[in-house]
Formats: sequence, structure tokens, C-alpha cells
Amino acid sequence: MFSAADTTFMAQAIRLAELGRYTTSPNPNVGAVLVHNGVVVGSGYHRQAGGPHAEVSALREAGIAAKGATCYVTLEPCSHYGRTPPCAEALIAAGVARVVVAMQDPNPQVAGRGVAMLRSAGIQVDVGLLEAEARALNPGFLSRMERKRPYVQLKLAASLDGRTALANGDSKWLTADAARSDVQHYRAQSCAILSTATTVLADNARLNLRPEQLQHSVTALQSGELRQPKRVILDRNGTLDHKLALFNDGGEVLLCVSKVENSRPLPNIARQIHCPLDSKAQFDLVALLEHLALRENVNTLWVEAGATLAGTLLRLNLVDELIVYLAPKLLGNTAQPLAVLPEFTALAQVPELRWTDMRMVGPDIRLTATVNHTATGVTG
Amino acid sequence: MFSAADTTFMAQAIRLAELGRYTTSPNPNVGAVLVHNGVVVGSGYHRQAGGPHAEVSALREAGIAAKGATCYVTLEPCSHYGRTPPCAEALIAAGVARVVVAMQDPNPQVAGRGVAMLRSAGIQVDVGLLEAEARALNPGFLSRMERKRPYVQLKLAASLDGRTALANGDSKWLTADAARSDVQHYRAQSCAILSTATTVLADNARLNLRPEQLQHSVTALQSGELRQPKRVILDRNGTLDHKLALFNDGGEVLLCVSKVENSRPLPNIARQIHCPLDSKAQFDLVALLEHLALRENVNTLWVEAGATLAGTLLRLNLVDELIVYLAPKLLGNTAQPLAVLPEFTALAQVPELRWTDMRMVGPDIRLTATVNHTATGVTG
Repeated sequence: MFSAADTTFMAQAIRLAELGRYTTSPNPNVGAVLVHNGVVVGSGYHRQAGGPHAEVSALREAGIAAKGATCYVTLEPCSHYGRTPPCAEALIAAGVARVVVAMQDPNPQVAGRGVAMLRSAGIQVDVGLLEAEARALNPGFLSRMERKRPYVQLKLAASLDGRTALANGDSKWLTADAARSDVQHYRAQSCAILSTATTVLADNARLNLRPEQLQHSVTALQSGELRQPKRVILDRNGTLDHKLALFNDGGEVLLCVSKVENSRPLPNIARQIHCPLDSKAQFDLVALLEHLALRENVNTLWVEAGATLAGTLLRLNLVDELIVYLAPKLLGNTAQPLAVLPEFTALAQVPELRWTDMRMVGPDIRLTATVNHTATGVTG
Repeated sequence: MFSAADTTFMAQAIRLAELGRYTTSPNPNVGAVLVHNGVVVGSGYHRQAGGPHAEVSALREAGIAAKGATCYVTLEPCSHYGRTPPCAEALIAAGVARVVVAMQDPNPQVAGRGVAMLRSAGIQVDVGLLEAEARALNPGFLSRMERKRPYVQLKLAASLDGRTALANGDSKWLTADAARSDVQHYRAQSCAILSTATTVLADNARLNLRPEQLQHSVTALQSGELRQPKRVILDRNGTLDHKLALFNDGGEVLLCVSKVENSRPLPNIARQIHCPLDSKAQFDLVALLEHLALRENVNTLWVEAGATLAGTLLRLNLVDELIVYLAPKLLGNTAQPLAVLPEFTALAQVPELRWTDMRMVGPDIRLTATVNHTATGVTG
């Protein structure tokens, strides 16, 4: 069904889609390439919600050369009127002869209808080329659509012996500048950051995006395209003073409370969101993640918190990926742990990971791992 | 002083020297290349103590072509009669015109005399080409000669959160087969393994070399060339039963005791060595390492032990290199620590490392680090 040339052009569409990773959410990253007689006549990617879709950019560039061309697109063309007219209609109108789609759109508003619309117009549609690679473009969007929760990335920083701070709390600076700058790149790609009042209070943390710490290739994005992620703060007891740096800088602050108090004055930047309590009178994090996906359009959630929240998310199997900065230090057995977990009695019970990447980040090592959700009993 | 061609030939000599890494100790790894009119006419490396030195192998291969040639050798040619006649004499006799030496021999029996002998015979000698690379061939030999203690490699295996076993002791198998096979390659290159009676008793550990777990390239060595490292066991209270697997397999067992009891019956494979106690009535590990270097010719010491000995060695700044297998698991805060260290009150006090390598070993990650001996107050 697919030729080597098909694969080459789809790979090009995937690389184009990646260019949107700082700007496209809550929409998916999508790339498209139009090819006529073996020559690329148009290409594009979806850059910002409300802006042109990838196929439309490619069609504009191709002009009349689109007639009889093949369109390679990383996600099924949309079939519905949203902020823009349906791409399937545009492809039909342009006279495209064939559409190669990497993956069907999981959005229930599309879900096969785009393909059907194209086929009923007589266009040859082939689906499934480089599907795994196309899925990897949009872990957050797919998680929100398919699992009704964000893709959760847990950021950790520890010594080689897995300690985050000395017994007295000293952790400045466990990792070096390069690791902190690297974190900024993750924040810049995240829809929201999850943390706790305890963490905010400990460092008067802002948990915001500091563009001056980003690499030039990112800051070269046009003004307004980089967005401040929302800060989602678990604040059970409403302890956060409005003078904290958190409220003076950065994106919106969503204060998770078990009971919304409309009468309570809040900084302009902040609002309360309701999070139910579980049977142990703790925040129901499963419910919170569903709320963030369905109500706040959070594709990717970046977690920066202490060992307790980290451990709870891991125990509930809510973590999809760990990003760990390992400092070349040993803090010893009295120092603070990486994750508070229940006591296990057999190695078969412990959370299992799979290493996916390792690299130097300045003097520190960054390890990434995915969580093997089938290993433990609970499913997120 | 050195041309690009000089560097090329010395690099070749260094690669040859590396071939001896499983067989040459307690002698140093040395490689030699003889070049006449730009053509390699002979090469060799030192393979086993008692066997021919690198220069002699190269001269034998070159025959009369050695006359007027340049000899590239990674270590200063020896000047004394040991188990073999001095190489400097052989080079003179062969009529070599020039000798390029990567580094001076730190052995006080040589230490510049080889170079002097060559020069007084009218041979041009140039010293210092690729010296750092040549030193890296022999961390153990150089440590024994220059510091009067072995090069100490501490092996650790831990989960991502720096834990070595569950609270109940379960640690089988934290890391996978590939990591255990990798450990065998380190054991095979080590003169001795240091451990404790506690560790031996916990697993009935043999701490021996299992050639069947080595890669083919290593097992292809001739029979008898692979050696079983000595096992040096801290056995303060003489608790080791003679029926333990340790005494039935592998290399010699050196039982460290504070008072040698000649009357005590020991398995044939074992003998006692005296290790004084320090002011806190613990084994004086500084004295033990000196003993192992000076009396037992231990170049490299591979440590496989628990968090207490690991911590003590680190605290005393006696560890040169850490080899850490990180399993993709999280054991939680109740699990057992990697290293028992004193409680620090500021990050400036903690042991500082420098990452030197990282790679996948099966499903685990192997990290290596050197210890920054200048960071803490104590010096080994």
C-alpha cells in the first residue's frame, strides 16, 4: 500500500509537525506535504489554535499544483466546522488525487469522518503510514482524547543515591544551571504545571516560564506564541498568601480546593477549581486529572513537587513519563527521599519503568523513563 | 617534537596495550610499535607477567628491520633485570634509531633510567606523547606505584530512587542478567574483590569469576590467562563457616582480621591477613589498602559490599570510581539506602562525583563516575 517515497514524504510531514510543539496546544501537532509527480509542491504545519491547519497551509503554497497531487498528512483531515472550515473539504476542492494519513483522528468530532468524506468524493485514502511516529507527536492530545486525562510528566531531581535534599532541607543547588534551563523547555511545551502549596511556600516558587533561559531556537518564536503554562496548585488549607511570587508572574493559577468559596477574594491571576476528596480525605487526583483534561483542555501536565505528591501519583499509576536530573553527588542515607511509596514486600510489587533516553545536561545526567502501567495492579 | 604520524603510531601502541587488560596485572599494560620509513615492521603488547615485554615482541617481529627504526612505546622501556632482561638493552642491541615514549615509568626501579640508558647509547628519545591516554591504560598500576594503594572501583546497584533492596532485604533480582554479566567483566580485570562477611553470608556469595558469563572475545583468551581475583573479606568476628561457597570456588580468600591466629584451621584456599583497627575500633581501611598494594600487588580493587562499607570508603575518600547499575524501578522511601554517610548540613559538604560514562546494559543503565577527591576535606 505504501512505497518508499510515501514513507519519505510522511517522515517530512512528521518533522514539520514537530515545529509546532511550543505553540500548538491544546490542538494537536500536525504536518502536511503535497507532492505532484514526485515533487513537493506545498507543505505546512499547524502552528497555533485558530490559525490555518497543516493541510490548508500546504494547499495555499501549492496553488493550482495541488490538482492531482498526493497529500501526506500526519493526522486525519478534519471534517467539521471549528474555528476553521473542514480540511477534507479544502482537499476535495483543490482536486487532490490521493491522501495518505498517518493516523485516524481520535477526536470524536472527526474519528473517521474526514477519511469518509474524502473517499466519498472519489479520492484514494490510505491510512496508517508511520502511525507510531505520528502518535508520538501528540502524547498529550491523544491522552486527553482517548483517556480523558492529560499526559503526565513527573520531573525529579536527585543525587546518585536518590535524594532530593539534605535532612535540613538544603537543596540549592543540587543540579546545575543547564538542568534548570532544560526544565524551562519542558515547561514551555506543557499546558499546565502541577504542584503543591508546600512546594510553592518552600522556595516562594513561581513555576513560570522564563524565556531568557530558553535556547535561541525557541525564543526566536514570534512574540505571543510562547505561552505561560497554567499553574495547578493543590492548596488544601488555603495557605497561599497573595503576595507570593506565584501570583505576580506567569500564567493563570488554578487553586485546587475541596470546596469552592466564591466569596473569597483572589488575585486576578488566580481562580479556584473544585477537586473532590477521596475516601481517605485526600484530593482525588484521578478526578482532578479528568477535570484538567475535560474542562481545562490540558494535554500535557508537568509535575514539579515533593516526594509525597510524586509518590501518590506513582502509586495511583497516573505518571506517564519521568524526567530525572541526576546530580553527580551523594547525599547519604539521612537525606530526603525521591518518592514516598508504600512499603513493598517483594520486588514484583514495585513500580516498573522503561528507560527511554539518557544524556548529559551540563554536569548532570538527564534520564527519562516511561512507566510500565501493566506492572502493578492499579490502572490510571 | 611530535608529528601527526608519531601520534598515529602511538595511538596504535595504546590500542595494542589495551589487549592485555584481562591478563597483564600486576604488571602494567604496555604496547609497542616499530616503524621503519613510515612502515610498521613490528608490534606487540605485554600479555602476561613473566612473558615478553611489548618492545621485545615488536623487536622479534621486526627482526633486522628494527635497525634504524622508531619504536613507539606506551611506557618507558625497563632498565633492570627482572623476570626478563631490560628492554632498553634490547632496543639498543637492535639498533633502533629513535624511541618515542608516552610516559615515564613510575616504578622506582625504572623511573627515568630506561630513557637515560637509551640516550647514553646515542638513541633519540622523546617522552610525553599521548601521556594522558597512556596513563588511562594503567590506573591500578599507577595507583599502586604512585599512591601505594590500589585503584578502587565501587560497584553499586540501585533503583532510580537509590535503593538497593526492600526493607525486608529482598533484592533478587534488582538488575537483570546483562548487568550481572557486565560485572563479571570488571571482576575479570580486577586483582582483588573487597567485601564483608555480612555480604558473603547474606547470599552465600562466591564473588568469583564465572567465565561462562563473559563475552566470547574474552573467553577466547587462552586457558589459564583469565585469573580468579583474590577475595578480600572483612571478617571482624571470624563468622565465616568453612562450608560457605566462597571457600569452594574461585581465587584465594584473604580474611582480614585484627589479630592473626596461626593456630586456627582455615580452608586451603584461605589465609588471614592482619588489618589494624582505627581509633574507633573499626578496620583501618587506609592501612588495609596500603597492605593490599605493597604486600599483595593489588593494582585494582573491585568493591562489592553493602551501604556501610560503601559509605565508609566514600567518607574516607578511598573510592576512585563508581560503577552503578540503575534498575528501571522505584523501591520507595522505606527501602534500603545506597550508602551510609554522616548527616551533612550543607550541599558543599557532600561527596562530589563527575560522570564519565553512561550506557544501557540490558534493561538497566550503567553509570560510571569518578570521585572528586578535592571536594571534601579528607584525602585518601
